[in-house]
Amino acid sequence: PITGGFSIKEWMSNVWSFAKEDSNRVIFSLKVGFAVLLVSLLILFRAPYEVFGTNIIWSILTVAIMFEYTVGATFNRGFNRALGSLLAGIFAVAVGEVALRTGHVAEPIIIGISIFFIGTITSFMKLWPSLVPYEYGFRVTLFTFCLIIVSGYRMGSPIRTAMDRLYSIAIGGIVAVLVNVLVFPIWAGEQLHKELVNSFNSVADSLEECVRKYLEDDGSDHTEFAKTVMDEFPDEPAYRKCRATMNSSAKFDSLANSAKWEPPHGRFKHFFYPWSEYVKVGAVLRYCAYEVMALHGVLHSEIQAPYNLRVAFQSEIQDASSHAAELVRSLGKDISNMKRRLQNSLLKRVHSSTERLQRAIDMHSYLLTSGHDLLDYSKPLPKISSTLSSAPSDLSAQLAEPAGSNRPEPPQEAQAPAETLPPAPAESYNETMKKQQRRLYSWPLREVDTFEEGTVGGAGNLLPRMSALESTTALSLATFTSLLIEFVARLDHLVEAVDELAKMAKFKNEDS
Amino acid sequence: PITGGFSIKEWMSNVWSFAKEDSNRVIFSLKVGFAVLLVSLLILFRAPYEVFGTNIIWSILTVAIMFEYTVGATFNRGFNRALGSLLAGIFAVAVGEVALRTGHVAEPIIIGISIFFIGTITSFMKLWPSLVPYEYGFRVTLFTFCLIIVSGYRMGSPIRTAMDRLYSIAIGGIVAVLVNVLVFPIWAGEQLHKELVNSFNSVADSLEECVRKYLEDDGSDHTEFAKTVMDEFPDEPAYRKCRATMNSSAKFDSLANSAKWEPPHGRFKHFFYPWSEYVKVGAVLRYCAYEVMALHGVLHSEIQAPYNLRVAFQSEIQDASSHAAELVRSLGKDISNMKRRLQNSLLKRVHSSTERLQRAIDMHSYLLTSGHDLLDYSKPLPKISSTLSSAPSDLSAQLAEPAGSNRPEPPQEAQAPAETLPPAPAESYNETMKKQQRRLYSWPLREVDTFEEGTVGGAGNLLPRMSALESTTALSLATFTSLLIEFVARLDHLVEAVDELAKMAKFKNEDS
Repeated sequence: PITGGFSIKEWMSNVWSFAKEDSNRVIFSLKVGFAVLLVSLLILFRAPYEVFGTNIIWSILTVAIMFEYTVGATFNRGFNRALGSLLAGIFAVAVGEVALRTGHVAEPIIIGISIFFIGTITSFMKLWPSLVPYEYGFRVTLFTFCLIIVSGYRMGSPIRTAMDRLYSIAIGGIVAVLVNVLVFPIWAGEQLHKELVNSFNSVADSLEECVRKYLEDDGSDHTEFAKTVMDEFPDEPAYRKCRATMNSSAKFDSLANSAKWEPPHGRFKHFFYPWSEYVKVGAVLRYCAYEVMALHGVLHSEIQAPYNLRVAFQSEIQDASSHAAELVRSLGKDISNMKRRLQNSLLKRVHSSTERLQRAIDMHSYLLTSGHDLLDYSKPLPKISSTLSSAPSDLSAQLAEPAGSNRPEPPQEAQAPAETLPPAPAESYNETMKKQQRRLYSWPLREVDTFEEGTVGGAGNLLPRMSALESTTALSLATFTSLLIEFVARLDHLVEAVDELAKMAKFKNEDS
Repeated sequence: PITGGFSIKEWMSNVWSFAKEDSNRVIFSLKVGFAVLLVSLLILFRAPYEVFGTNIIWSILTVAIMFEYTVGATFNRGFNRALGSLLAGIFAVAVGEVALRTGHVAEPIIIGISIFFIGTITSFMKLWPSLVPYEYGFRVTLFTFCLIIVSGYRMGSPIRTAMDRLYSIAIGGIVAVLVNVLVFPIWAGEQLHKELVNSFNSVADSLEECVRKYLEDDGSDHTEFAKTVMDEFPDEPAYRKCRATMNSSAKFDSLANSAKWEPPHGRFKHFFYPWSEYVKVGAVLRYCAYEVMALHGVLHSEIQAPYNLRVAFQSEIQDASSHAAELVRSLGKDISNMKRRLQNSLLKRVHSSTERLQRAIDMHSYLLTSGHDLLDYSKPLPKISSTLSSAPSDLSAQLAEPAGSNRPEPPQEAQAPAETLPPAPAESYNETMKKQQRRLYSWPLREVDTFEEGTVGGAGNLLPRMSALESTTALSLATFTSLLIEFVARLDHLVEAVDELAKMAKFKNEDS
């Protein structure tokens, strides 16, 4: 209602889609309404009101403050509330008794000093790093103590007041917990489980998206970094999700923290379910995601490898990345289905396609370094894969054969993307090498003409801009592939972490 | 007290150092104690108690719940509390009046339904992403509404009850705000300012630490990734700080959010101080930090460039990184001192040392690719810088001259690290090129012996491990330098963002 919307209809549809996106939101809202209604009935009806008196309004307060989204969080908050109230009650009764015995003059002084001390100590304690999660408990302790001791002083019999209030709070707490657990419970564990699976998918999506854009990009629509720095990549939905994964550690922690308070439920049947392993797997996944972010950084870097060079390694990069993404997705699926399965075959496939990529880079590394003056980048380079396999009579293929025959070469993937460029006449390997040789001698005499001292920057900007040496831009491709390879290397650890989780959470064994 | 500590003394010293680390912690605690004491006096003394009656205990509750660490957060929470209470009061009075007129039978039904709806609607609204920061306000609305309407129903005259309660809450709120602002105020803006400066320093430290370790590492004590994945790099304090910077976006957001509520204060003298610019600079800095994380990833990668190769480029890498770190630190210092200064000279220095690095990589790129079989890595390679400048009669130096003379070459830095390795007899450039040439022909026939199909993994682990092609490991150095160069490229944007902040926040001009 604060949107200032001129279109009620649009606003309604927004709300509707928000509710539809996750029906738990509506369920949660209705549950809160139901819980406060239940506890209000205690006052609206005459009988309970006469038993408990005005203190019963504390149960409403308790419900409103205690009711959290997930069962675990509600338990946690309830624990804070209960322990806080209990401690406050004990302190208050003790101090109250002492104060009462010191006589009329000293009583308010002692009460005042005790309030000051409790306020100071609880506030200091809640800043202590390991006690930060219990911040709410300290608040409760403080205000409950003040309320009991002050109203005890004004209305007499602090124990009576304290007990009545504790009863009311207990009633509120019990109503909140019961409604939360019995009416369409929203389990933190279930949420954590889903979040983790989603993270796997978003990392896989983001990897594929990033590689696709890298190979598609023809350099013409290179958006400037400055415009994109504020995290706005509107055409990259998966990247945004992956970035959310990067920042999800706090969310995972809090969900796992809540989940620990939950009894066994649904698919998570045994006690001491290893929720903290979820956090660990999430951390390893995040380490993989760092590499995706770095890949993304290369994609949007100002120093770019020539398009043709990227296309030359297209099929290898694509194979490696799509196999890696498939493995990540499959791991996510196993967690989702709670199956334990060693992903040997997929992992081997990822390894072999990564090795193919490494081999391609290895054999054609002369393309990466200072090669820009010997190859005309305006013409498409021959695809590495086509020189490797599709033209067996070619010299390069002959030369490549011995290395390739060490192990069964994976069959040329049918899913390799349709050639967007006309098949260029493959430059003979011999010729390339001759040029390479020539380059070696003519090399340092080459003019580094793209470099200019001073300002090259944008309009009206006095800052000097860094200019990249044209000749090193090809190394950007090496960086991209290195990061991709490092991503794959980290997948080993991801597979291991997932297996550890599967073992500890007693997922169903299912060997593939 | 929950540490279960067997040593009271140790525990005391922990608490002491925690308090000493940031004296604001103690100040905050004492302020809370003082505020609750103040508000309790209203009840402990007879006069105010007789004026306000039992409702005055609500002011204690308000203080305990509203008192936040910073001034801005307290204002924000107070606003939530006030608006929430006000809305709840209006709703409650309106519903109460309607219910009263419908007669005795319908009254509780209407009240019950209204409670249910308010509970449902406020709970749903607080899930809406843009309203999440006002979560507390919705809670306040809910419980205040329930309290007023229920006690109004039981005790008559809801308006009277509502007004009394609002007065009490207002008193509590005013006390909380006054104490927070007048007694040693802790400003969110000041905190944000400091945090940002600290982030600059930690990024700079982390960069230097990472580069130092990269150049130091002789491969012998290479800790396994699996052991280090859980974010534990005990010997890398700066890395941990930098990682904290990465995750600081939520903290920056909330501090900036609080700072917006604060009146001009201290060094931040004008209205509408651009706190959101701090968040933007933080975001750009984080983009730079991503590169540092990626560098760190290369440092701990399993695929490592041979140590000697790294040492060969040592002086260039070190110059570029230390200049970059210096620039970052100097930017942080400017912000800290609120000076506006175009960092032209430092930026140029960073650029020129980065160009030197690029040039070195460019000229010696044959070392990076498949070069491992032509150079004996067990012997130290000649330092690039020494072949470039210290042996002018050498062929390589002669060859390098034309390219170097395009622009004034920065003088060989005196701060170049002391040679730890004995100055090896520099391999003649000619000889290297001959070998390079030989390699070109013998190349594809070379055995890739390090590659093995199947399992190579750790003890008792059935998972296949990825094995890196030995010949591509040198590319890891290219990755490292590319990432370093990309870091420098992003510094341009950082300088720009800082300048934008300086302009908008009207920092003192001071041209250097």
